[in-house]
Amino acid sequence: MKTDKKRKKITVLGGGTGTFVVLSGLKRYDDLSLSVIVSMTDSGGSTGKLRDQLGVLPPGDLRQCLLALSEASMNWRKLFLYRFDSGDLKGHNFGNIFLAALEKICFSYDEVVNFASILLKTKGEVIPVTKDKTHLVAYYENGKVVEREGLIDENKGEKSKIKKLSLKPNVFALKKAVETIKKSDFLVIGPGDLYTSIIPVLLPIGIVEAVKCFQGKIIYIMNLMTKAGQTYNYKASDHLRDLEKYLKRKIDIILINNEKINQKILNIYQKYDEIKVVNDLEKDRYKIIETDLLDNREFKKDSSDILYRSILRHDSNKLARVLIKIFYA
Amino acid sequence: MKTDKKRKKITVLGGGTGTFVVLSGLKRYDDLSLSVIVSMTDSGGSTGKLRDQLGVLPPGDLRQCLLALSEASMNWRKLFLYRFDSGDLKGHNFGNIFLAALEKICFSYDEVVNFASILLKTKGEVIPVTKDKTHLVAYYENGKVVEREGLIDENKGEKSKIKKLSLKPNVFALKKAVETIKKSDFLVIGPGDLYTSIIPVLLPIGIVEAVKCFQGKIIYIMNLMTKAGQTYNYKASDHLRDLEKYLKRKIDIILINNEKINQKILNIYQKYDEIKVVNDLEKDRYKIIETDLLDNREFKKDSSDILYRSILRHDSNKLARVLIKIFYA
Repeated sequence: MKTDKKRKKITVLGGGTGTFVVLSGLKRYDDLSLSVIVSMTDSGGSTGKLRDQLGVLPPGDLRQCLLALSEASMNWRKLFLYRFDSGDLKGHNFGNIFLAALEKICFSYDEVVNFASILLKTKGEVIPVTKDKTHLVAYYENGKVVEREGLIDENKGEKSKIKKLSLKPNVFALKKAVETIKKSDFLVIGPGDLYTSIIPVLLPIGIVEAVKCFQGKIIYIMNLMTKAGQTYNYKASDHLRDLEKYLKRKIDIILINNEKINQKILNIYQKYDEIKVVNDLEKDRYKIIETDLLDNREFKKDSSDILYRSILRHDSNKLARVLIKIFYA
Repeated sequence: MKTDKKRKKITVLGGGTGTFVVLSGLKRYDDLSLSVIVSMTDSGGSTGKLRDQLGVLPPGDLRQCLLALSEASMNWRKLFLYRFDSGDLKGHNFGNIFLAALEKICFSYDEVVNFASILLKTKGEVIPVTKDKTHLVAYYENGKVVEREGLIDENKGEKSKIKKLSLKPNVFALKKAVETIKKSDFLVIGPGDLYTSIIPVLLPIGIVEAVKCFQGKIIYIMNLMTKAGQTYNYKASDHLRDLEKYLKRKIDIILINNEKINQKILNIYQKYDEIKVVNDLEKDRYKIIETDLLDNREFKKDSSDILYRSILRHDSNKLARVLIKIFYA
């Protein structure tokens, strides 16, 4: 048995579906000390309604990360995935409702996260990046300003680039998030929507400073597809340029899928002005790992789901195998 | 330590606030083998909405009984009591939402009750009287017919007596409910609304037959106050006459409060046409125990609560002490 000191400390930054996939894969490896720093700016769908109507912190991304790391019984995992499809509760996810009620009865948000982590038997630590309420603001090159993550997400027709993303109000990162980043051996970023899942984790005060102190390597998992309204027509180099601007540090290792994507699926994305991310990276600037990272199953939109979800995903096992090789190289 | 064979088998029939009080008191005694057979016809408030909108069984009474017997941590008990006070979830109780979601993801209602009982560490067994969906129908002496428990409850202006209460559709009692009644040493009925909490447990096919086979004694805890629209102007003997009509068997022991009720509280009830239940029982017909059973705290209506709740209650400790004396006499 390896001692705790030899276990690699891996910290994942994010919160959306991409982060769920990465965590689900890494969870299966016992020798990792796994943490995830979760974005706290979601404002769409069930999460947005609960924020607005109950004044709670956004539960959605936290729930997904808890669930990804959960080793609780199937019933708990089914419950936390369950979305009501009719009546007053229509569109609300049970896990979100659970976290909202828990926040109402607990004395602190630490207690909420702790209670939920124990209940869901999470293998690894789930850390909200902040416990202060805040919203995203996107400033586009054409002068447009959009506030709230949900609305940035919905601004799909936008061809103008996001010039600047910030928080309103500006908030402090949780001390635990800062300390965890500093002590990590690897930071894993992506896949995920650059401006609504990834960069939001970098914005709270203290995170960029923590990354500066961090001595290990940063791995970025490149998105499979561009995202209308935020990374329109972006190539791989565009993703990295934007990410590094906020990170204030160079990425070390890039994972990028080279498995062919089914043309039928590409055609669906094309209708939404979304295309495959082209690998145009300079080979001497980064360590680039091009390999098959694709989940070949088709994902269908859930009829009870009020948000548009990607039908194409990375494969959690393929991703994890590549990551483990890097961690223990 | 007493062996299981010597433990008295106590079965409580009901489901409302009165049953909660009885169970909360009896839970504190380790030497009892405690069960509760829960009414499944609630159709008002949060429960009614969940029934109608999601097609689930009524969670409210089940939740209250689970909670009354729960030895889980304070957070779980707070969660199951928590009622949302704004937005889409306004008026819904978290415990009800939990049971509704659980029913959606489980294969059987047995699994729902079992999962919730383990989660809430219930001391004793909670048994829904039926797992079939049904509604109450009340036929009044004046010819009026009202369907659904929620509407019978709301028919407060009604001065006419309920001639007959039945289920639509007629449903079978759970085998476990039937077997539990047969094997009990004591059945405890009441306090609680006669026509919306107590008699509903007696209606599913099999319950009255089980009571016929039952060899022990039946204890009835008399309500403190009459209930407008269902036991208008009822004296103690009226309660017993109606109850025995459905039970098809004589009650053995009656517990009745003799502690003076605060006049201020009586005045509030008076406004709703509700008065103290007068003890007019013939002393030779029943074993009557008249004693102080009153909870002297004042209960206030919860502002987030969409139902009218009684402000006067029995005291769970006083009730339990008297009951224990009877069980071990």
